[in-house]
Amino acid sequence: MDAFTYYNPTRIEFGREKENNIGSMIAEQGITRLLLVYGTGSIKKNGLYERIISSLKNAGITYEELDGVVSNPLLSRVHDGIDRVKSHDLQAVLGVGGGSVVDSAKAIAAGALYEGDVWDFFIQKASITEALPVYAVMTLAATASEMNGNSVVMNDATKQKYSISSVLVNPKISVINPELMMSVTPEYLAYSAADIIAHTIEVYFTATVHPHFQSRLVESIIKTVIETTEILLKDPLNYDARAEFAWASTQALNGLTNSGTGGGNFPNHMIEHALSALFNIAHGAGLSIVIPAWMKWYQGQNPAQFERFAKEVFGLGTANEGIAALESWFSSIGTPVTLAEADIPTERIAEIADNAHGLAVLWGMGTQYSSQTIATILKNA
Amino acid sequence: MDAFTYYNPTRIEFGREKENNIGSMIAEQGITRLLLVYGTGSIKKNGLYERIISSLKNAGITYEELDGVVSNPLLSRVHDGIDRVKSHDLQAVLGVGGGSVVDSAKAIAAGALYEGDVWDFFIQKASITEALPVYAVMTLAATASEMNGNSVVMNDATKQKYSISSVLVNPKISVINPELMMSVTPEYLAYSAADIIAHTIEVYFTATVHPHFQSRLVESIIKTVIETTEILLKDPLNYDARAEFAWASTQALNGLTNSGTGGGNFPNHMIEHALSALFNIAHGAGLSIVIPAWMKWYQGQNPAQFERFAKEVFGLGTANEGIAALESWFSSIGTPVTLAEADIPTERIAEIADNAHGLAVLWGMGTQYSSQTIATILKNA
Repeated sequence: MDAFTYYNPTRIEFGREKENNIGSMIAEQGITRLLLVYGTGSIKKNGLYERIISSLKNAGITYEELDGVVSNPLLSRVHDGIDRVKSHDLQAVLGVGGGSVVDSAKAIAAGALYEGDVWDFFIQKASITEALPVYAVMTLAATASEMNGNSVVMNDATKQKYSISSVLVNPKISVINPELMMSVTPEYLAYSAADIIAHTIEVYFTATVHPHFQSRLVESIIKTVIETTEILLKDPLNYDARAEFAWASTQALNGLTNSGTGGGNFPNHMIEHALSALFNIAHGAGLSIVIPAWMKWYQGQNPAQFERFAKEVFGLGTANEGIAALESWFSSIGTPVTLAEADIPTERIAEIADNAHGLAVLWGMGTQYSSQTIATILKNA
Repeated sequence: MDAFTYYNPTRIEFGREKENNIGSMIAEQGITRLLLVYGTGSIKKNGLYERIISSLKNAGITYEELDGVVSNPLLSRVHDGIDRVKSHDLQAVLGVGGGSVVDSAKAIAAGALYEGDVWDFFIQKASITEALPVYAVMTLAATASEMNGNSVVMNDATKQKYSISSVLVNPKISVINPELMMSVTPEYLAYSAADIIAHTIEVYFTATVHPHFQSRLVESIIKTVIETTEILLKDPLNYDARAEFAWASTQALNGLTNSGTGGGNFPNHMIEHALSALFNIAHGAGLSIVIPAWMKWYQGQNPAQFERFAKEVFGLGTANEGIAALESWFSSIGTPVTLAEADIPTERIAEIADNAHGLAVLWGMGTQYSSQTIATILKNA
């Protein structure tokens, strides 16, 4: 097992109606003025917005708002948020929504205390040394943004979808109320399932060492995601399945599963970031296209772990059977597994590969993942 | 799934030689004077003491010492530590040792900022509202004291072994270096394995709800403990097995496995505390005696989970087979499963049961666990 640091100081408040106390939870930490970040309006339709506002007011917290955060969240909107924080001298950022909203909140929190352009952090021109406190109320389970320091943002000018990671932007408190996630569409539930599985198997397959304990944790998460997704597609209001799905999602990318593994890398995310940057498809949909294609290409580099995956997750005998089972399962829940299903023309593979290779270089995988290699992988899709 | 709060702000530094930087890690948090707590001298024999002292000195930290902390740590020694902290105006407490040492460090940290007797916290006469920062360097994997707010202390005057739990005494930083655990005797390794398993199965069996995800996490821990214990009994210097054993131990009682379960309770620990208070046997040895006896008595109250345990952990078909397999496994690794093996006369069962019932009342299980019921359970052992 490799050496590691595990430090995750986020407090999770999990359960029904927990969001109704978000104001007092934040006020207890000495905050009186914050930026409220949310998406394109669903929280206004379902009443969540009113309850959050009411909770903030009851706790004596004033707020400015930043709405309109979209999937594959935009740097331009992050800039708007930073301007708002600075001009109103706000003390904290509260994101209410899914991963895009909370990722934007984190970027705003880091950028608000930095003199340069927040994009400097994403292109590794500068390191985050301080940030405003971040709080989150989740309406989607997928990214684990509620319990990590990751933020993925798209630079709308350059079409680069890049990320930062710092414990300084881990939410101080995150509310996970599975009931808030019940209105997610079947399509997005499937995309989320693909995303969660991707978070665990990237390191599961690419790590330099494979402690059995960590492999077991990953398999526990994947089996839970498969089981609860199937329940939820039939019975979207099943609270317990929604809750287990959400908590497994949180554990999938909060540092636990990759502790001691040497860290591995995230080639599927790397390739997918290019897909969604160029075609604006949902992140999870992009991942379910990339993952089987990548697995077919990569399996020979780690046959033992691919056999383990087939056996432990699906009860099957060979690596190929495990890959086929996952691909088939993705299809069965309605998330695409080919470029064609997402209307992405194969003629543009070279362009996607070049975009992804840029990220590969930034993430230290440039040698392993040349444009040509990425194109080879994508041809499997 | 039940509502819960998960908040575990302990930073884990895991790996070889991490303890050599404990001084600078603590100094970075603004500490310049601390109390160094340790046991009965093994750290002086193996050189760890010198390395810790050297690390503290290099970081400009001065220290007072409290040695002589024993298994089933004594309140009298905690009082000594509190006196030392107060008289030298120390800012933090660093425990170097196993669970007893770190538990004592936590009690000292809480008591040092309290005007009354620290025992008030243990008998729930007062609540912890502040504490000095605690740091830990672990030499034994068993209690998960490195990543929780629990402290178990024995009142040597009253023979009560009671506990506290507060996130305020969670270590700020804990070093887990598996190499420091390689000199543990085979007996203590076996006792530790029993302790870790106990930490997970108490809630696994007694919880009001059983989310599959949490059950899978527990089974992952138990399978890892069984696998690595068997390796380590043959090959004590196996670093990877030692590391997985240690990390599984930490995860067994850091709040993760019982999140969402409604919490359950800890009847095996309750009964065992009486055993070790009256007979001063090792905590894990007491647990391996109590657990099979309790399982035989309790299984009818949760047959589905007992069948699940048999199937998932041992690949067996019935609850009884699962219990027998665990009992037999305890015997195979050399930890006792009967009172007789620990030289505890059956004539004293009534006395043990009365002592345990006192704790049952304090832990809110007084109705379910009368003295008579506890005696019935113990007769299975």
